[in-house]
Amino acid sequence: MHVVVNAAMSADGKLSTRRREQIEISGTRDFDRVDELRAESDAVMVGVGTVLADDPSLTLDDPERQRAREDRGEPANPARVVADSQVRTPPDARVLDEAALTYLLVSQAAPTDFVTQMEDAGATVIAAGEDRVDLVTALAKLAGDGIDQLMVEGGGELIFSLFEEGLVDELSVFVGSTVIGGRDAPTLADGEGFVEEFPALSLDGVERVDDGVVLSWTVTDAA
Amino acid sequence: MHVVVNAAMSADGKLSTRRREQIEISGTRDFDRVDELRAESDAVMVGVGTVLADDPSLTLDDPERQRAREDRGEPANPARVVADSQVRTPPDARVLDEAALTYLLVSQAAPTDFVTQMEDAGATVIAAGEDRVDLVTALAKLAGDGIDQLMVEGGGELIFSLFEEGLVDELSVFVGSTVIGGRDAPTLADGEGFVEEFPALSLDGVERVDDGVVLSWTVTDAA
Repeated sequence: MHVVVNAAMSADGKLSTRRREQIEISGTRDFDRVDELRAESDAVMVGVGTVLADDPSLTLDDPERQRAREDRGEPANPARVVADSQVRTPPDARVLDEAALTYLLVSQAAPTDFVTQMEDAGATVIAAGEDRVDLVTALAKLAGDGIDQLMVEGGGELIFSLFEEGLVDELSVFVGSTVIGGRDAPTLADGEGFVEEFPALSLDGVERVDDGVVLSWTVTDAA
Repeated sequence: MHVVVNAAMSADGKLSTRRREQIEISGTRDFDRVDELRAESDAVMVGVGTVLADDPSLTLDDPERQRAREDRGEPANPARVVADSQVRTPPDARVLDEAALTYLLVSQAAPTDFVTQMEDAGATVIAAGEDRVDLVTALAKLAGDGIDQLMVEGGGELIFSLFEEGLVDELSVFVGSTVIGGRDAPTLADGEGFVEEFPALSLDGVERVDDGVVLSWTVTDAA
């Protein structure tokens, strides 16, 4: 499986304000780039924090791209994957609508009634890990379901966990021309943080897009 | 006064690890760029957190640049400025050595014995603000002392405060090819964070340096 993390951050590395309110960091050209990345992916993944904060649909904006996928014999939209260690996904979340297949990753500690509720809402539930989602096992199960190209859109907790497990192959970041600030605002990679060994990246691309820049790295060495 | 903020951050916006330990984010070419920026400045400013974490000297590395300054009738090193609302600067901090003039910015609540201790250690103490440093007043006093070009090297608390007060004219950031992570790790702009109005920046420069990229912005509109 090939895992690409893509996110937009402010000049100071924030994904949203300390209130978890998204602000428009990028613009139409970057939205289009992200839509194209989604179209090339078998699945698009977020953490439950992003579901709760933004309630995204994670589907394609461009109907042309949906038709092109269908012409290739693929579903119109990539599958959606939500990592939810603490069973917080609301049954009316947009990611559970019928626009695409949705995988919900939970731990084996997830209560049966939550799993049933999610399955009733249309999700395919994958349980991996004792009390939090074991991402290595869960992603291997997704690969077994034919998901080769996985795009990760955040948030910072999930992105850090994926780096921690050595699961990220590529990182692309739109750096926008504003400052959000805030010691409690979500950043591109939150979690515990690394203290001794750090993932090594190789900078492949630097491209001006909208009023910012897209930086693209390949992960050369996991932490 | 012209205020330039310059810092090196990881791909995820961190200045150091959650333990406040600096890791090498940039490389020799960026160090040289920073040394040149210092050489062009009348003063180099940090927050006391940076003094406590890194004990920097903030002087020039390159003796040629020191000589060039002296040839222009300037001191070999730019002055140093430490913002210290909570009177935490240790009397044996490197910024207090004799290599350059040092201004210590405190609030009017700073105890007299601390001020005396700092003056004995060689600092010029500027008191502004009731219980934390009033940066607008303090920088105006520095301007009155002939400091026209001020370079700010961090940390994230000071940088946020300067943006909050609308005092930043330029921002240049080396974005390095690593991920530090950590919801408690210092970022380029910490503080409370903006929630409604955000500083607007204009991206002027994008330059690959070492294995990263230097992004340069002009602040077009204060928050």
